Amino acid sequence: MSITVVGSIAFDAVETPFGVRERMLGGAATHFALAASFFDQVRVVGPVGDDFGEQELEVLRTRGTSTDDVEHVAGGRTFFWKGKYGWDLGTRETLDTQLGVFESFSPKLSEQARACDVLFLANIQPGLQLDVRAQCADARFVALDSMNLWIDIARHELLEIISRVDCLTLNDEELRQLTGKPNLVSAAREILTTGPSIVVAKQGEHGAALITSDQFFALPAYPLETVIDPTGAGDTFAGGFVGYIARHVGSGLSADVLRNAMAYGTALASFNVEGFGTEQVAAVSAEAVAERVAELWQFTRFEHVVVELVG
Amino acid sequence: MSITVVGSIAFDAVETPFGVRERMLGGAATHFALAASFFDQVRVVGPVGDDFGEQELEVLRTRGTSTDDVEHVAGGRTFFWKGKYGWDLGTRETLDTQLGVFESFSPKLSEQARACDVLFLANIQPGLQLDVRAQCADARFVALDSMNLWIDIARHELLEIISRVDCLTLNDEELRQLTGKPNLVSAAREILTTGPSIVVAKQGEHGAALITSDQFFALPAYPLETVIDPTGAGDTFAGGFVGYIARHVGSGLSADVLRNAMAYGTALASFNVEGFGTEQVAAVSAEAVAERVAELWQFTRFEHVVVELVG
Repeated sequence: MSITVVGSIAFDAVETPFGVRERMLGGAATHFALAASFFDQVRVVGPVGDDFGEQELEVLRTRGTSTDDVEHVAGGRTFFWKGKYGWDLGTRETLDTQLGVFESFSPKLSEQARACDVLFLANIQPGLQLDVRAQCADARFVALDSMNLWIDIARHELLEIISRVDCLTLNDEELRQLTGKPNLVSAAREILTTGPSIVVAKQGEHGAALITSDQFFALPAYPLETVIDPTGAGDTFAGGFVGYIARHVGSGLSADVLRNAMAYGTALASFNVEGFGTEQVAAVSAEAVAERVAELWQFTRFEHVVVELVG
Repeated sequence: MSITVVGSIAFDAVETPFGVRERMLGGAATHFALAASFFDQVRVVGPVGDDFGEQELEVLRTRGTSTDDVEHVAGGRTFFWKGKYGWDLGTRETLDTQLGVFESFSPKLSEQARACDVLFLANIQPGLQLDVRAQCADARFVALDSMNLWIDIARHELLEIISRVDCLTLNDEELRQLTGKPNLVSAAREILTTGPSIVVAKQGEHGAALITSDQFFALPAYPLETVIDPTGAGDTFAGGFVGYIARHVGSGLSADVLRNAMAYGTALASFNVEGFGTEQVAAVSAEAVAERVAELWQFTRFEHVVVELVG
């Protein structure tokens, strides 16, 4: 099953309590691809500028990802984001955003990218997501990410694209903001009435929850004593989640498939936050990923030992 | 195994987006006792004033809890707390606190209360917790709760009592504040070097995590579409957690015991937040509690289906 991802390819400048990076490869599509490439052939769709070199393309090509649909805009500059994290990494402040080549981006997918089985619409303007969705009419599984900005300024288009995907991934707060419902389960259930059959609530250091019409599943983040840089954790999670699903979309998405997808996404995200940028996920071995999934199983399992209660 | 709890017995005034209560039975010891009474004989230690009547005592006595150690201070008024919650119940503001009889509280435990097997030191001044700990010298399992206020103004005494208990329960932020460590796992591990063998990080709507020297376990909150009033959720959780442990403390605290304790605490807390004050947990049946634990098992289990990864 081939996977197409459309979204930002970026240079990030990041300051965390554990260090500073002035310029490193980032972007939602980048982080997604690095994780999803563990599962299947990934094609990255997104624009880059003259400042994007062969070295960065090589990282994107990790584990066979195709960069044929990375559009080089001559004379342009790659999307740039600069941010600073608080002491417990729970909050972050955007210090600078330079859209660069994204300002005039109009996705033109190759025939191979359009023929994908699985499509991930990373966080970009909902209008562009609609455009790409239309180009990939035959995709068997489509997942979507977004952010508070689009809820604020492009709500109508965002609701439109949500109605055309199988899975929505959003942060807790964004699910509340989008639906106006203060309760997370209610918010997710409302989304399920509008098109998607799966909602994934991303909860940062607390993990993620999956809600469908007939199941609820929650998984904590993999516990780490050293977290260096959370940038890209959500997209890395999505890459593992969607990647695992891509492997199984032909044979149906059982509860076990979705739950393992959550676990692989969670394991991959844990590597992402252990280093700056793409360095950890680009280098990690398949064995190390599988080991963390097995640990997550151990960290969450319990055998219900019933006791006779009073009353 | 008998359980003694020392802590506040209170009247609460609460405003949530779902309603207002001007005066309802509350307090940490109250919520703890209502949950722990499902497991064993509980004795409540704490002061009340002239405004505390037979009706309130009857609620405390639910499922056989002893109120022999509830100290009636003639001429005094019961501890009073007033608070207001934000729209998603994630934040709360204290509007009023009247210590009343707590201002001069000096715990004098009866012989039966002192002879407890299991002791819960609910959130009160650490000096009082030290006093009670000394009176219950033979307790086989002692758990402690506290709050940011005591970290700020009674840090030395708080660290002293922490060193004398088996289990510390605190919110994520409080664990960070107490240790100065921004990372939750590191913070918990530091606590484990100071005396306790178990740390429980309470995470509100995201559940709770348990950290010991050789295990990590995390459980989400029971997913609810209707949450009315979170007041007392942490103490109700503690009542279920400590209550389950009380049942097993004689035969050793295996990982399975601790994990089931987390599940029973989580299930009981979910009933607490479905209504105001004590109304739900006082009325819920043993069957309904066991059913929610079984559901939590279902909401968190996954069978690791290994896939061959690329690379």
